[in-house]
Amino acid sequence: MTTLGELAKALELELRGDPTRSIVSLAALESATAEDLSFVSEKKHLPKLADTGAGALILHPDWADAWPGCALLSATPYVAFARATRIFDNHPRASGQVHQNAFVADSVRLGAAVSVDSGACVEADVVLGDRVWIGAGAYIGHGTQIGADTVIKPNTVICHQVTIGERCTIHPNTTIGADGFGFAPSAEGWVKIEQLASVIIGNDVEIGANSAVDRGALEDTVVEDGAIIDNMVQIGHGARVGSRTAIASQAGISGSTHIGARCVIAGQAGMAGHLTIADDVHIGGQGRVASSVTEPGHYSSGTPIQPLRAWLRSASRFTQLDQMARRLAELEKAAGLGQNEDDSA
Amino acid sequence: MTTLGELAKALELELRGDPTRSIVSLAALESATAEDLSFVSEKKHLPKLADTGAGALILHPDWADAWPGCALLSATPYVAFARATRIFDNHPRASGQVHQNAFVADSVRLGAAVSVDSGACVEADVVLGDRVWIGAGAYIGHGTQIGADTVIKPNTVICHQVTIGERCTIHPNTTIGADGFGFAPSAEGWVKIEQLASVIIGNDVEIGANSAVDRGALEDTVVEDGAIIDNMVQIGHGARVGSRTAIASQAGISGSTHIGARCVIAGQAGMAGHLTIADDVHIGGQGRVASSVTEPGHYSSGTPIQPLRAWLRSASRFTQLDQMARRLAELEKAAGLGQNEDDSA
Amino acid sequence: MTTLGELAKALELELRGDPTRSIVSLAALESATAEDLSFVSEKKHLPKLADTGAGALILHPDWADAWPGCALLSATPYVAFARATRIFDNHPRASGQVHQNAFVADSVRLGAAVSVDSGACVEADVVLGDRVWIGAGAYIGHGTQIGADTVIKPNTVICHQVTIGERCTIHPNTTIGADGFGFAPSAEGWVKIEQLASVIIGNDVEIGANSAVDRGALEDTVVEDGAIIDNMVQIGHGARVGSRTAIASQAGISGSTHIGARCVIAGQAGMAGHLTIADDVHIGGQGRVASSVTEPGHYSSGTPIQPLRAWLRSASRFTQLDQMARRLAELEKAAGLGQNEDDSA
Repeated sequence: MTTLGELAKALELELRGDPTRSIVSLAALESATAEDLSFVSEKKHLPKLADTGAGALILHPDWADAWPGCALLSATPYVAFARATRIFDNHPRASGQVHQNAFVADSVRLGAAVSVDSGACVEADVVLGDRVWIGAGAYIGHGTQIGADTVIKPNTVICHQVTIGERCTIHPNTTIGADGFGFAPSAEGWVKIEQLASVIIGNDVEIGANSAVDRGALEDTVVEDGAIIDNMVQIGHGARVGSRTAIASQAGISGSTHIGARCVIAGQAGMAGHLTIADDVHIGGQGRVASSVTEPGHYSSGTPIQPLRAWLRSASRFTQLDQMARRLAELEKAAGLGQNEDDSA
Repeated sequence: MTTLGELAKALELELRGDPTRSIVSLAALESATAEDLSFVSEKKHLPKLADTGAGALILHPDWADAWPGCALLSATPYVAFARATRIFDNHPRASGQVHQNAFVADSVRLGAAVSVDSGACVEADVVLGDRVWIGAGAYIGHGTQIGADTVIKPNTVICHQVTIGERCTIHPNTTIGADGFGFAPSAEGWVKIEQLASVIIGNDVEIGANSAVDRGALEDTVVEDGAIIDNMVQIGHGARVGSRTAIASQAGISGSTHIGARCVIAGQAGMAGHLTIADDVHIGGQGRVASSVTEPGHYSSGTPIQPLRAWLRSASRFTQLDQMARRLAELEKAAGLGQNEDDSA
Repeated sequence: MTTLGELAKALELELRGDPTRSIVSLAALESATAEDLSFVSEKKHLPKLADTGAGALILHPDWADAWPGCALLSATPYVAFARATRIFDNHPRASGQVHQNAFVADSVRLGAAVSVDSGACVEADVVLGDRVWIGAGAYIGHGTQIGADTVIKPNTVICHQVTIGERCTIHPNTTIGADGFGFAPSAEGWVKIEQLASVIIGNDVEIGANSAVDRGALEDTVVEDGAIIDNMVQIGHGARVGSRTAIASQAGISGSTHIGARCVIAGQAGMAGHLTIADDVHIGGQGRVASSVTEPGHYSSGTPIQPLRAWLRSASRFTQLDQMARRLAELEKAAGLGQNEDDSA
């Protein structure tokens, strides 16, 4: 529990209203009560203010007239809300100790106040920076280096010789640095290509649960500073994720594809290998990226859901599209309307 | 090994034939031998009876004439078969003990006959109901509550303050309650929104292997009673899965999307965030759900596979579809057949 | 560090040039230096030779004239490169011991030089062949059998009664033998079908990180010799993956689908259940396989990404395709050009 005045000070925001007002928690506009601080992230949500029970709001100074109650004014209200969540954060805290049930090899170099929880295994020659937190059951492979204030959550596996920067969070059950999928076809079957390179993850990177970032064959797989990656995302060997790029759940980036900075890749999008994606590219959900994208902008693919019977007809016609286009061109020719530039794919 | 008579009694089904007949196992019609009990789930499988070697069958009374051999008669033969699988179940049994290699914090409240296997870690203030089974290497975070008879399989991670009901099964390597993917964009990069809410899972829920159910930012993520979720399914923060809804492998539900009761979401389907899906909606495999669905029924999207060269032509024409439609309208106008209601998207 | 002569001998390749030349590592053509061995896998890469700084190359004898420097000649240069990666392999080696923090049940049968790392749990009646390596935190369920030289990476879960052959690698956080997704619908909700069969994995199989191969209900799930499976791949219960078939990341194979030998299933492809896929079938990325494929060849589905506004128009028109086809047929009839064989789906 805190007061509005303390929050204004901590968030460095202008306060309008009673600084002694008690604030118990954060809440969405729809569910907020008189003891909650809420927020308006975009102008389009202003109509909801008529119905909110919030005790106070974070909002833009330009919108201040729309709300008669207590307010914290911010030119970037959504960012101010994000900062406020840290004040109310209820995550468990690190112990700062190596648990009796953990295994840490003799040659490991531990920074100050490192936590290694029950069942974790830290192999030889690992270097852990100050305040690094290795969660229960996590595995840190030989020679891996992890920067200060990075948190590896329970049961995550970081393989050998991986480099992870500072202030990163890797969520549970994720795998960093397993072998990339590299095999040469031969008459006797697939011949494995040992993956000799590794993974380099920058600072301030967050990677979700149950994701995988594979180690490279000859070139390292790289995730640059400030990138954010959701759950169940696949990053293939030798791929590169640019700074501050966001990749949503279940997207897959094939080997050697390089994604620029500040891109947004939506859920279940898939990229073929060896592509180059420019900076500031947005790919829609389930986007099928089979060739490089050289211009910034928003791209999408796929078809919308339809009721089953209607979709069956659409899908069937899709397989006839080329023939339909040729018939259309025939008709245009017959009608003297020919647009011949369009009649071949 | 059992007898047909004992099975009839245990399953409360009418027996036709020799109650002393020995039954060793369950088998599909195609592979069943004289010591196997098999079943007919749907009328369309009746022609297979001519070729089956099964010693006895579970089938509907209406179909009894189609099979001269021993039978267990059930108005719901597939459900009767499902119940029979429990009798032949060969899964290992719980120890009812805390393994010497497990860690259980002092403040944990253990019900009767709780099992905690080797390498598991149960953090402070956890409450485990009677007969709960925590598998080897699983992690149960601070303050989490798990209801009676629920099984958490090996290496699964349940984060802090999660609530799981009774008789649930969470399969291996799944993550419940990791942070939702919430970040505010700022000039200095992504600012993390701490995920302050949690996950609530009802009774009789099953969640497959390597799946993830994220904790909410301000509102809990909820999976209601009797829902069944397959492997590698992503449930985003603040999402809600209605009672008895089934979600197949690799489907993804984005944040704040609410799915009704008794829905069936097929494999690899993806839902955008902040949608509402009505009760009794079925979404086909790889379905691309970008807007809310208000009516029950079956929906699908996507295109069928074609041989590569044919598909390349279809896919290329897809990008010309709007222009084709406009040319079609032109031709209709020229021919005096105009259907002007259709010539704009 | 080695010499070109030693490499030629180890790889059994013809050497052209100085056998005493020192080779420190392998590298791609683009980044290779004078101490690196590189390779040309396909003729189309020959133009890159003008710019490479490699000290030596593996290449086809037919292309030898295109490169004046040191060379190892191979009729299968990509396979020779794959073999060379083993010589430079830097993966940590197994300890050949059971770690003090591991749990191995008394009834386990251990071959020679078996390694069981920290935190691993090997349940009763497991059989581990010679030189099997169970990684840290991995779980091996009751009665499972694992053949010689197979490596189970950290935190992987192998459930009970699974059979895995020789020389396999199962990467971290993968789950083999969890329950298939089988439930019978009833008036009281879903009734679980206990999954009584298991998983059989052949020899020389590699399975990536965070994947899942479910156990069968009545028929075993089977992965045949030499198959290679990438990360986050789902193999449903009772499915069969043929010998030497390759399945890329995030692909999903539904229950009871049988895939032939030497197929290549690209990333995020999805297969419905109960299908049969012939030998030598290639499915493109995100391929939507809803029916059986009886002929070898390359197949694909889906649509390419477009700039958002253009795609919105294409997607909208997709839902009108059947009507467009009918209007086209009308126009053809009016113009006396009718191709009536095409005007119904």
